[in-house]
Amino acid sequence: MKTAPKKSNHPTQLAPRAILPQGWLGTGLAAALKASGAPDMAMVFSERPADAVATFTTNQVCAATVRLDRDRIERLGMTHGVVVNSGQANACTGKPGLADAAEMAAYAGKATGVAPEMFLVCSTGRIGIRLDMAKIRPGIDRLAAALQGGEAGGKAAATGILTTDTRPKHYTATFTTGDGTRCRVTGFAKGAGMIQPNMATMLAFILTDAKVRRGPMQKLFREAVANSFNRITVDGDESTNDSAFLLANGAAGNAEALRPGVPGWEDFATAVRAITRELAKDMVRDGEGAAKFVTVQVTGARSAADAEAAARAVGNSLLVKTSWAGGAPNWGRVMDALGYSAAKVVEEKVDIAYDGLQAVAGGTWAGKTTEAALRKVLAGKEFTLAIDLHLGRGAAEVFACDCTEAYVQINRD
Amino acid sequence: MKTAPKKSNHPTQLAPRAILPQGWLGTGLAAALKASGAPDMAMVFSERPADAVATFTTNQVCAATVRLDRDRIERLGMTHGVVVNSGQANACTGKPGLADAAEMAAYAGKATGVAPEMFLVCSTGRIGIRLDMAKIRPGIDRLAAALQGGEAGGKAAATGILTTDTRPKHYTATFTTGDGTRCRVTGFAKGAGMIQPNMATMLAFILTDAKVRRGPMQKLFREAVANSFNRITVDGDESTNDSAFLLANGAAGNAEALRPGVPGWEDFATAVRAITRELAKDMVRDGEGAAKFVTVQVTGARSAADAEAAARAVGNSLLVKTSWAGGAPNWGRVMDALGYSAAKVVEEKVDIAYDGLQAVAGGTWAGKTTEAALRKVLAGKEFTLAIDLHLGRGAAEVFACDCTEAYVQINRD
Repeated sequence: MKTAPKKSNHPTQLAPRAILPQGWLGTGLAAALKASGAPDMAMVFSERPADAVATFTTNQVCAATVRLDRDRIERLGMTHGVVVNSGQANACTGKPGLADAAEMAAYAGKATGVAPEMFLVCSTGRIGIRLDMAKIRPGIDRLAAALQGGEAGGKAAATGILTTDTRPKHYTATFTTGDGTRCRVTGFAKGAGMIQPNMATMLAFILTDAKVRRGPMQKLFREAVANSFNRITVDGDESTNDSAFLLANGAAGNAEALRPGVPGWEDFATAVRAITRELAKDMVRDGEGAAKFVTVQVTGARSAADAEAAARAVGNSLLVKTSWAGGAPNWGRVMDALGYSAAKVVEEKVDIAYDGLQAVAGGTWAGKTTEAALRKVLAGKEFTLAIDLHLGRGAAEVFACDCTEAYVQINRD
Repeated sequence: MKTAPKKSNHPTQLAPRAILPQGWLGTGLAAALKASGAPDMAMVFSERPADAVATFTTNQVCAATVRLDRDRIERLGMTHGVVVNSGQANACTGKPGLADAAEMAAYAGKATGVAPEMFLVCSTGRIGIRLDMAKIRPGIDRLAAALQGGEAGGKAAATGILTTDTRPKHYTATFTTGDGTRCRVTGFAKGAGMIQPNMATMLAFILTDAKVRRGPMQKLFREAVANSFNRITVDGDESTNDSAFLLANGAAGNAEALRPGVPGWEDFATAVRAITRELAKDMVRDGEGAAKFVTVQVTGARSAADAEAAARAVGNSLLVKTSWAGGAPNWGRVMDALGYSAAKVVEEKVDIAYDGLQAVAGGTWAGKTTEAALRKVLAGKEFTLAIDLHLGRGAAEVFACDCTEAYVQINRD
């Protein structure tokens, strides 16, 4: 189902599994919020309060849950758990929506025996619709009763958060701290493609039993998200509900809280970076109607920001994405997208290669390969599009997918 | 086929016809540049040199023809005509491409008996392919021999520039100057949807027999293009070859060159604005695979720039466009797009209406209409989506179309 990433120099082990770290419980179930009868609620819960950091959508229109979580994480920096529903996004629901989100958290706190403010809330689904609290309350009671640890709990939670994803996405890494404590980091996520009529949202939960200093953890997570979830493009739209959490409960018992300089920190950081990156890639692979996974690499940009702008313009171009779907090496469309990007581009300097086969040299056909050879690359499920702007040292990559008729089909109906 | 625009207060008459103004000749033909045998070359020619202003793509990657034309219009400000081909875009073709463009112009000059630099060139087609000069040279000879005036010449030229457009797009307006001279303005264009593998380009030609002062004409045209061709969105991509020309040959014989303050200037300006606007709308209506035409109006923005950014975000959103294709009043997706636009948006202040039916008040469902009533609006071929941000006096509108499976189909194959 998933391929493990390349081994890093660090001894961190990464497996496509959902084994909850110590002190973490999870579950998921169907509460009839979706007509399909598929799982539509999930919960993760820590037996002790966990240090919490998070990143949220930058959309100016954001869900009640995002407002509530952002406020709690800023004020408290800790949580006992997160309760999740799909079906209704609780976005554009005004003050009643905020009250619903608060009630949902309080109800989860009551059901698990913790303070009302020690729960966070995530919703995903249709914008503009109030939460169906009459179904959510009993759903929470059932979630609290069904919480379990280990792989069973992780799998149930990872499955419970899905909407139109075709498969759960989860990774577990283990590492050892300086005092010999074995720690675990487990992450799971649901996809980023905007889904169904008004269904939306990327949700990601990274849980660990390590004890970690919150300040460095926040900085690490912000950077990890910038290089993973923020580097993917399915349809270029950013949802009202996107949320990613890194929660550390310290149940493993490492003596010294991990921070830069403390043995184990680097392995922890490697695990967080690898898990967020692999989850992000899996989201693109599982993008709505997506048949191809393309890594767009830009080097030689004037700056890192320019490199990212150029890579995004290519990865978001509807014309580039439809040509990938057709398996055509339309490097002209790539040139076109680079040209209208916000990045500085000098046409005569651009080189473009597909999986190492150079198509463009100095802004025009390189004459070093054949269209047939390029078509062979594009016929594959995954390839890398490497662009060198030859203007500086800025580099960036984004993970993109093709745009198929199936995407339009899914989103129009 | 086309509906005439609403009458302005000016007496300018606008008809969906292609009657060439005095002293203008035109034609189009098939020169076998396209395998289909469809017309693939066109020419417009003025018996006397015409004052020339133009706007071109702002893409940093631009065709050899754009470079040549931009240079000539800056240096000379005049031209005798324009020769157009489809099939090859002559973009990303390096120095040989620039030489081809210059040769194409020189050949057209020779065929019509004018200086080599007194011709402009437009190409549209596949990026990265050299012009097929062996076919273009005899094509130019045949074009020069077939030039004719009036409606026959206009229709032939308007048809000759088309690529995957399903119909020609042309308008003619007449007005009278202060000294009683009857003048004509005729415009025709080809569509803006990026077309076929690497086919691209919006081309527009506005021709007049009025004598017009070049400075004000340039300013007028820049503004008219900003409010017409630059307000349309089919797929959000900007081509390497987009070019729009306004050419005035003075053959009508008005004594005083038109400029602000000279009687007739306002009617001329009205004609240019109306023709560019109607051509732009027709391009969207004829967008690739487009079934619906949507005017996205934003008012109450902090600034005009904010209004435009907000309108473009909505008009370019793949999720919004696919929901239009499905006929669903997904105002949540509109809210989402507004939220991630570069415009300042305060969720609680946003109002949204479809053809006057208010769906959203203060950022949430207005409760003033029914989903069924909204669906009826979206079932139509054309509707207006009005968004009031309630933050200021900035206003803008863009013309957008839906995104259908047919769009993906056209662009992947």
